Amino acid sequence: MDPYVIQMHGHGNLPSVLDVHVNTAGRIPVPGKMKGRKARWSVRPSDMSNKTCNPIRAIVDSMKVKPNPNKTTISLSIGDPTVFGNLPTDQEVTQAMKDALDSGKYNGYAPSIGYLSSREEVASYYHCPEAPLEAKDVILTSGCSQAIELCLAVLANPGQNILVPRPGFPLYRTLAESMGIEVKLYNLLPEKSWEIDLKHLESLIDEKTACLVVNNPSNPCGSVFSRNHLQKILAVATRQCVPILADEIYGDMVFSDSKFEPLATLSSNVPILSCGGLAKRWLVPGWRLGWILIHDRRDIFGNEIRDGLVKLSQRILGPCTLVQGALKSILRRTPQEFYHNTLSFLKTNADLCYGALAAVPGLRPIRPCGAMYLMVGIEMEQFPEFENDVEFTERLVAEQSVHCLPGMCFEYRNFFRVVITVPKVMMLEACSRIQEFCEQHYQCAEGTQEECDK
Amino acid sequence: MDPYVIQMHGHGNLPSVLDVHVNTAGRIPVPGKMKGRKARWSVRPSDMSNKTCNPIRAIVDSMKVKPNPNKTTISLSIGDPTVFGNLPTDQEVTQAMKDALDSGKYNGYAPSIGYLSSREEVASYYHCPEAPLEAKDVILTSGCSQAIELCLAVLANPGQNILVPRPGFPLYRTLAESMGIEVKLYNLLPEKSWEIDLKHLESLIDEKTACLVVNNPSNPCGSVFSRNHLQKILAVATRQCVPILADEIYGDMVFSDSKFEPLATLSSNVPILSCGGLAKRWLVPGWRLGWILIHDRRDIFGNEIRDGLVKLSQRILGPCTLVQGALKSILRRTPQEFYHNTLSFLKTNADLCYGALAAVPGLRPIRPCGAMYLMVGIEMEQFPEFENDVEFTERLVAEQSVHCLPGMCFEYRNFFRVVITVPKVMMLEACSRIQEFCEQHYQCAEGTQEECDK
Repeated sequence: MDPYVIQMHGHGNLPSVLDVHVNTAGRIPVPGKMKGRKARWSVRPSDMSNKTCNPIRAIVDSMKVKPNPNKTTISLSIGDPTVFGNLPTDQEVTQAMKDALDSGKYNGYAPSIGYLSSREEVASYYHCPEAPLEAKDVILTSGCSQAIELCLAVLANPGQNILVPRPGFPLYRTLAESMGIEVKLYNLLPEKSWEIDLKHLESLIDEKTACLVVNNPSNPCGSVFSRNHLQKILAVATRQCVPILADEIYGDMVFSDSKFEPLATLSSNVPILSCGGLAKRWLVPGWRLGWILIHDRRDIFGNEIRDGLVKLSQRILGPCTLVQGALKSILRRTPQEFYHNTLSFLKTNADLCYGALAAVPGLRPIRPCGAMYLMVGIEMEQFPEFENDVEFTERLVAEQSVHCLPGMCFEYRNFFRVVITVPKVMMLEACSRIQEFCEQHYQCAEGTQEECDK
Repeated sequence: MDPYVIQMHGHGNLPSVLDVHVNTAGRIPVPGKMKGRKARWSVRPSDMSNKTCNPIRAIVDSMKVKPNPNKTTISLSIGDPTVFGNLPTDQEVTQAMKDALDSGKYNGYAPSIGYLSSREEVASYYHCPEAPLEAKDVILTSGCSQAIELCLAVLANPGQNILVPRPGFPLYRTLAESMGIEVKLYNLLPEKSWEIDLKHLESLIDEKTACLVVNNPSNPCGSVFSRNHLQKILAVATRQCVPILADEIYGDMVFSDSKFEPLATLSSNVPILSCGGLAKRWLVPGWRLGWILIHDRRDIFGNEIRDGLVKLSQRILGPCTLVQGALKSILRRTPQEFYHNTLSFLKTNADLCYGALAAVPGLRPIRPCGAMYLMVGIEMEQFPEFENDVEFTERLVAEQSVHCLPGMCFEYRNFFRVVITVPKVMMLEACSRIQEFCEQHYQCAEGTQEECDK
């Protein structure tokens, strides 16, 4: 009997679902079985998916606390500037998208690395004499996340390692470990405005180090490295011959008293892949338009790394073509005033939050210079009720309905991160609740209560 | 001397680029060096990028021929329905995007698997009693390519294998091999309208088989499987306990005399991941909005595969939020007339092309029933000048300026693929040039020239 003849049964004359019942007693051998496949269902997720872990999700999901029902929830935990509606993108950006739609020219497939014309625009926007760029040096990606993914995927093999800041953005670890790449954490120094502990950094480099990840301006720290410090980082890379993945998604998002220096403008010999995108500066993170800028004036990456990036981009074929089509107008027409207003809002909130929390007993905020965050140290010895930063932030939710991410999300204990994109009144209210919370739980480690009250 | 002190030199007093020169003769040991890292530059692309190969690019790029300068170029090679402007998307689709833009609600991050409301829309659009769907069964992706990538990544480990149609879309191999997954090709039978050779398929299954890829309607064949044939495929999967990745990106794109049956509607026991998206039916492939529909009524995938897909989606955070925001209106408001017009255009072109090429000596087109392609067999023995399909299509470019992809791009020799989305006049002109080309090169293998002339 032919096993490829189907016997069907149904529920009535015209069954809507035909369950397939197969005669396996026939003469024709079923070769798959002969190779020892067990005919029972066992579908298991791959090692890669098992190794893919988002620490923020894991930590936040395991926090089982409910907000205080008597207080409205204030979220200082989500790094998305659009959630409160107080930071809309510019009209020119929206108009550029409508023009791209109306043109009808951007509905089809683009090259997997992006339209040439769009890559030309990005190149000319970021080109400068110290770090020249042409279209061939630009790869457009589905958000900065995919830019980082492609860079790690082209530079590192399973078993190699990458150097990543602590505290730092957890995506580096998520991506690296899913690919079997080891993560080594180098320390940032809060007492030095989160500069890199260069000796520690260099001590971690070994023959398996595939690249150094530098995130400037920093998420979660809001720090901005000086030219001098960046040069020292480049010196380590030069000495050890380690290429750099510069995560510069917050590039140009620095307050007026600081200056952002793209890493590639400070070295002509270290090969650098700089990752960026529209997400933060243009306030459209959901649009998923990122890019890789390839800086390789000494031809160390060479054609092979460039070709490798192109090949990897062909796996999912790049970002939405409409946003690519709008890029020219977005980069050329967004008024300076828009950038200025965003930064001035962020600076005001940063000052306000820093000032308020610096006055709270037991907290040690670190003043940010850019990006959209600040980190706040918790003098844990003054809060003996709480075991660590996770418990501190959990209780802050339970009592004050204020959500902040514990430092543990960034592999850094006894700190919490505050997002400063919330409306000013909300920022003020949150700070006042944090103050109340700290005052209620603050206890002198030594000395008398009077000393504490000072 | 502290090796972290930088000595700088510049070109004049205010150097714009500061090349970093480092003193390495100091007393402080440089730990990286102690671990044997050679301080010279050697940056190599990863194995993964080396293993990532796009066969179409590789074959097309190696075809060095130039089109005939006396004939305008006609491209029947690009599977993008938007390139000629004759198949614009519907106005409702464009309007839905504008509304999403104007709402200002879709600029921020969505969950990595997509907005709940958007997933609900997809679920209800594809829900039917035979294959029920809820939002939890839908994962939105950056195009159907990422949908396929996630499915393969969650189901297969390196060293396992997947079964893929021959001829078939080369992306399956590109993705699988980049992840170290082996590809086994099962035959489609041109004489049976490209049905699967089920015995061959089943003979390939072994204990390392992670999934069976079924592409219906087919690229490159334009074939549409009957209900009966789909049931036989499901019977193999049931007997061998192999889950199915159903690439149904051309779902519902079938001509009036055929019917598309979603694979999941025909089985309640085989776990199926069905991949689709807006690309083809709504004629916006560049927008990169795809989806995975999880069909698992027997709970064989279970929460683990679902969670695995969610975790993998967090690596690059899903598709453009604007398109997600527009999904509801796109799915609800696009008029039936639009779908009908597209299909009726494709059907006309398919008939026209099939009819014209069936009359050409030495060609054996296979009539398509859906999608946007047809495959044309070349009786190579009648064209002794050409070694194979690659040379045939090369010479067709050189002499007639008509571009078609050789079957080799789809791992199937002695065929070429024709894209039928081109405007009718162009289709006619292309067929007439193909005819001229064949008549010029056709030679009788045996018998007299007179017989050939019949």
